[in-house]
Amino acid sequence: MPTILIVVAVCGLLAIAYAIWATSSVLSADQGNARMREIAAAIREGAQAYLARQYTTIAIVGAVVFALTWFLLSLYAATGFAIGAILSGLAGFIGMNVSVRANVRTAQAASRSLALGLGIAFKSGAITGMLVAGLALLGVTVYFYVLTVQFGFAASDRTVIDALVSLGFGASLISIFARLGGGIFTKGADVGGDLVGKVEAGIPEDDPRNPATIADNVGDNVGDCAGMAADLFETYAVTVVATMVLGAIFFAGTDIIESAMVYPLAICGACIVTSIVGTFFVRLGANGSIMGALYKGLWATTLLSIVGLAIATWATIGFGDIGQSAAGLTINGLNLFICGIIGLVVTGLIVWITEFYTGIGFRPVRSISQASVTGHGTNVIQGLAVSLESTALPTIVIVGGIISTFQLAGLYGTAIAVTAMLGIAGMIIALDAFGPVTDNAGGIAEMAGLPADVRRSTDALDAVGNTTKAVTKGYAIGSAGLGALVLFAAYNYDLQYFVAQAQAGNGYEYFRDVQPDFALSNPYVVVGLLLGGLIPFLFGGMAMTAVGRAAGAIVEEVRKQFREDPGIMAGTSKPNYARAVDLLTKAAIKEMIVPSLLPVLAPIVVYFAVLLVADKSQAFSAVGAMLLGVIVTGLFVAISMTSGGGAWDNAKKSFEDGFVDSAGVRHMKGSEAHKASVTGDTVGDPYKDTAGPAVNPAIKITNIVALLLLAVLAHS
Amino acid sequence: MPTILIVVAVCGLLAIAYAIWATSSVLSADQGNARMREIAAAIREGAQAYLARQYTTIAIVGAVVFALTWFLLSLYAATGFAIGAILSGLAGFIGMNVSVRANVRTAQAASRSLALGLGIAFKSGAITGMLVAGLALLGVTVYFYVLTVQFGFAASDRTVIDALVSLGFGASLISIFARLGGGIFTKGADVGGDLVGKVEAGIPEDDPRNPATIADNVGDNVGDCAGMAADLFETYAVTVVATMVLGAIFFAGTDIIESAMVYPLAICGACIVTSIVGTFFVRLGANGSIMGALYKGLWATTLLSIVGLAIATWATIGFGDIGQSAAGLTINGLNLFICGIIGLVVTGLIVWITEFYTGIGFRPVRSISQASVTGHGTNVIQGLAVSLESTALPTIVIVGGIISTFQLAGLYGTAIAVTAMLGIAGMIIALDAFGPVTDNAGGIAEMAGLPADVRRSTDALDAVGNTTKAVTKGYAIGSAGLGALVLFAAYNYDLQYFVAQAQAGNGYEYFRDVQPDFALSNPYVVVGLLLGGLIPFLFGGMAMTAVGRAAGAIVEEVRKQFREDPGIMAGTSKPNYARAVDLLTKAAIKEMIVPSLLPVLAPIVVYFAVLLVADKSQAFSAVGAMLLGVIVTGLFVAISMTSGGGAWDNAKKSFEDGFVDSAGVRHMKGSEAHKASVTGDTVGDPYKDTAGPAVNPAIKITNIVALLLLAVLAHS
Repeated sequence: MPTILIVVAVCGLLAIAYAIWATSSVLSADQGNARMREIAAAIREGAQAYLARQYTTIAIVGAVVFALTWFLLSLYAATGFAIGAILSGLAGFIGMNVSVRANVRTAQAASRSLALGLGIAFKSGAITGMLVAGLALLGVTVYFYVLTVQFGFAASDRTVIDALVSLGFGASLISIFARLGGGIFTKGADVGGDLVGKVEAGIPEDDPRNPATIADNVGDNVGDCAGMAADLFETYAVTVVATMVLGAIFFAGTDIIESAMVYPLAICGACIVTSIVGTFFVRLGANGSIMGALYKGLWATTLLSIVGLAIATWATIGFGDIGQSAAGLTINGLNLFICGIIGLVVTGLIVWITEFYTGIGFRPVRSISQASVTGHGTNVIQGLAVSLESTALPTIVIVGGIISTFQLAGLYGTAIAVTAMLGIAGMIIALDAFGPVTDNAGGIAEMAGLPADVRRSTDALDAVGNTTKAVTKGYAIGSAGLGALVLFAAYNYDLQYFVAQAQAGNGYEYFRDVQPDFALSNPYVVVGLLLGGLIPFLFGGMAMTAVGRAAGAIVEEVRKQFREDPGIMAGTSKPNYARAVDLLTKAAIKEMIVPSLLPVLAPIVVYFAVLLVADKSQAFSAVGAMLLGVIVTGLFVAISMTSGGGAWDNAKKSFEDGFVDSAGVRHMKGSEAHKASVTGDTVGDPYKDTAGPAVNPAIKITNIVALLLLAVLAHS
Repeated sequence: MPTILIVVAVCGLLAIAYAIWATSSVLSADQGNARMREIAAAIREGAQAYLARQYTTIAIVGAVVFALTWFLLSLYAATGFAIGAILSGLAGFIGMNVSVRANVRTAQAASRSLALGLGIAFKSGAITGMLVAGLALLGVTVYFYVLTVQFGFAASDRTVIDALVSLGFGASLISIFARLGGGIFTKGADVGGDLVGKVEAGIPEDDPRNPATIADNVGDNVGDCAGMAADLFETYAVTVVATMVLGAIFFAGTDIIESAMVYPLAICGACIVTSIVGTFFVRLGANGSIMGALYKGLWATTLLSIVGLAIATWATIGFGDIGQSAAGLTINGLNLFICGIIGLVVTGLIVWITEFYTGIGFRPVRSISQASVTGHGTNVIQGLAVSLESTALPTIVIVGGIISTFQLAGLYGTAIAVTAMLGIAGMIIALDAFGPVTDNAGGIAEMAGLPADVRRSTDALDAVGNTTKAVTKGYAIGSAGLGALVLFAAYNYDLQYFVAQAQAGNGYEYFRDVQPDFALSNPYVVVGLLLGGLIPFLFGGMAMTAVGRAAGAIVEEVRKQFREDPGIMAGTSKPNYARAVDLLTKAAIKEMIVPSLLPVLAPIVVYFAVLLVADKSQAFSAVGAMLLGVIVTGLFVAISMTSGGGAWDNAKKSFEDGFVDSAGVRHMKGSEAHKASVTGDTVGDPYKDTAGPAVNPAIKITNIVALLLLAVLAHS
């Protein structure tokens, strides 16, 4: 086993090596003229200033949690927490720092050709992707190696499990703050800037006279790049950890427990290699289809990953019957391999469905464009209709995934499917993280007054970015849906373990009389489902309000700058970009705290509240049900928001080349229909980039906190 | 027991008597001038034409279902189905026919004083309310009496239970069609008419030159009156039936089974009387507060209902220990009485919370008005934020209700709380059904060119109507949330009963090897939760799309009329109102079919799909979980849509007297901020009047179909 762990770690290092190579390749590209460099510098400074402030705030919270974890659990757990938090922060930090340098280079490259622009933007995205996957895998693998090989703990020792769960918690905590803070920043700037710029002052998006324009571009980097990276880091880490924990519990007392814990790591290692190879397949074909170019990379990765899965299976558990689980189910290597393939198929289907719902040229986006012709109201109605409808197919795919993997290899099979799904996260993130780079490149092109065709190239890249952004979010939440049972099972089996130990007289006194009842007929289960189900709604509402408030503050600030210095609109004096960035930084940091605490505290509050009116058993039952409740509504809320938002955005973009309605009339940019589509886009902004994506970390953190609550109670 | 049944039936007859008295009182009022009568006649004709067509369509479906029920179950069941369907239709039909006569009389009365206008409108609403409660109670009571006393079946005989469930199914089927069809009609007319009238042609709402204006007023009657009546009839009937069925199962084999089945009927009987008394307390006070006047009636009813509950308890089960349930829990009459009071408290809290979220003058609506100042986009964002947030407090209230009632008297206690909640439905419906009457009265006043202050009176009534409409919807869905466990339990215990009988060799062979597992750790339970959770989202999306499509058709029609006859806009020739009504009638009937079938077929499809890949036990588990899944997401979707929509509507209304924003600027009707608020209102329209309210019948019908599925399989 140690050998395999070392091989996996080498795979993780390969990803880091790719990131270093790609970074030097991106940095060597031409940065364009002085004006472009100046704009890019302003964006870079703003983004760095925000991230510094955000990380400082998180560091304070993190230090407290670190101390608490040490005190309540152990130094091993606290160290795990620190590893998860620091590596997650690092992936976002480096990825964003590359992104703020790639933007201007992409603009410059796009002025030569679309293919060159795509090349730099995608490479920049791939750096973030590989860093996320590589650092997450390295963190888990190396810490697991250190704990089991160096310190000699058994793989299934509570110390190891607590340490891994704490690692996931560290990643989760960063993730919820980064997703929400970044999301509030980026959409506050976007919505506020558009309202006062496009609507009131009548100047185009990214016009250099708009004081919020730099903030808008900063937001792309801190929200869509750094925030997204933290989110996916967390999803990756939590999934791997949950699968390992499940392996440890599922095969407790059997001799395959170590293989079962190492297998998910091996899958991730193999898939990182295939993701790296896949990046070299991304190349603009003769038809000039950007989506087609990205798909080449994705399909190459997916197909190669089947081979990778086979190798990982062969190297760890083999393809035959590998033994029985603690529950007596015979586990077969081939079946697990097929489960992994199902995970990849689920990923492919979610990508395909998301593209259908958010891509220009398909029925949903067209229906929103068409509805824009009759006004703002009908645009929003149709957008909401699409957003609600877009949840159906992914749900059915997830249901199919759950049933098929469970039938093949029980819960562990489902966990392996989710692991394989997350295995290719490096590639998926690459598809996503290129979006903010091209968005920025477009902004720089506009502000620097580059020729219109440059903007056209960056816009074409950006439109695809809207879809790929939605894809990543659908993928992340989809993995949560497919993994719902795994996360719940980790909690359930942990609880069972403590109860069994307590009853056998092996400590854990707290759990002696606990008899959780997770049947739907138990009213505390229904209560847990309802309270869990509430979290995504309340959390989403808070996030939307925060964006509205931040945007309102930006509107006031921009109006003030216009009023104080009429030279800004005349183009004779420069607006104070930094003031807008600074204002948003403060607003986003302040606004992210309370909503982030909701999913962190919810399981704890519910546990003690139910304990107060009933007993421990019912309190554990309610918390367990809460974990499923938050996924059941969260899945729908997140998919509807992210797909709906992407569809609104692209419906707006469909007017840029003129949208031909059902009556054959062409509506151009600036028409009434286009204005209606801008309203939908504004609504979709916080939907898809703040509230929707933050639901995924909210789900995960609720689950992780519940696991930690068990661990802490066990230590008490 | 027969005596009590007769007393209950007399209470039901009292409600009918009240309705007859109030109808003659309303009809004796002055109908205003010739122009007003002419307009009212057009609305009346349109509404009657729509309802005739809708009922014809439903009758065809109903006849098929009647035959199927007869064939698959029994003539008793089919008769029950017919009773539920016909009485539900009758309540809506009569209520709406009074409503289309009260509108013009309200307009005329409002031209004399606000108090007189309120008097007629409220009385008209109370007619619908009493008819719904009275007919539903009579239907259940008399049929129960006939089956048990006349035909001599034991109260707990499967024939009786199947017949009662079928009665609920009949009500449900009418309800889903009426809610959805009516909702599509009313909002298609409203949205379409506004878009082409207010936005394109620049004419005010209800301007007689707008060809859609009559259709809009017809919609108020067929959607908000007849559709709502069918919905509440169904909620009432299903709740009473579910409580009776639960009583039958819960106390199976004990000697209190009959009391337990009659107790919910007695509660409803008592509460009908208190509702009738309460209507006489509705009177405009010196402060002129309309909401205050309505509250007087509501609080009178609620307080008197506590006395009524006491009498019902005393007359049926008494206040002492009344025996043990089949599960061995000792049931105490006093505790059940307290459960009933909790139901009333839940109702009061939901009313209060809904008023907070939708009433002018509170923080949520003000925040939407404020957001309108910065544009269409921020208005919609804030509205969505409010809609998401508004789910939190009702959920906590419902959770409190579940826990407290369960602790007092087990599941049967929860069922009694829901029964008491629904007991005062007559009063709640009265508060709601006065809304469309005043809305119509305003339209008639506008079209007939009555003085502006008449319109001001009707608008004041209408604004309160927006809140009371949201209240009724929150109340209906809240009862579903509180009753979630009851509905699931009816399914669960039914299933257990069949399995036990099969294993004891008493027939029901189909169930012999069934071992359902409703634990959250069962993947089929998670699958059921997810598929159930999908229904409200998909259903909501379909409903929103349908409204968008109907509204688009109206826009085309109105544009065509304006084009074909320029005299319409000039005011020299009359538009063809009937063509718009006819077009919408066809559209609404066509569009209601597919979404309505979704919740009807979903449990059947899920059952057989899971049966295909797994076995009977898992199929029953998945369907059971589906019943809770549909409530878990449905509760949030419905509350967010109805509260959010109400808030948007009243945010728009807040501009009518000028909204003073946070900077102290006053924004009047016609300002940019007002226009933004109109967009929000347009979005909120299908949210609150089509998709949101139809979720409640969708939940109920899914549950009822699942129960019938069991019954049919048992007969197979």
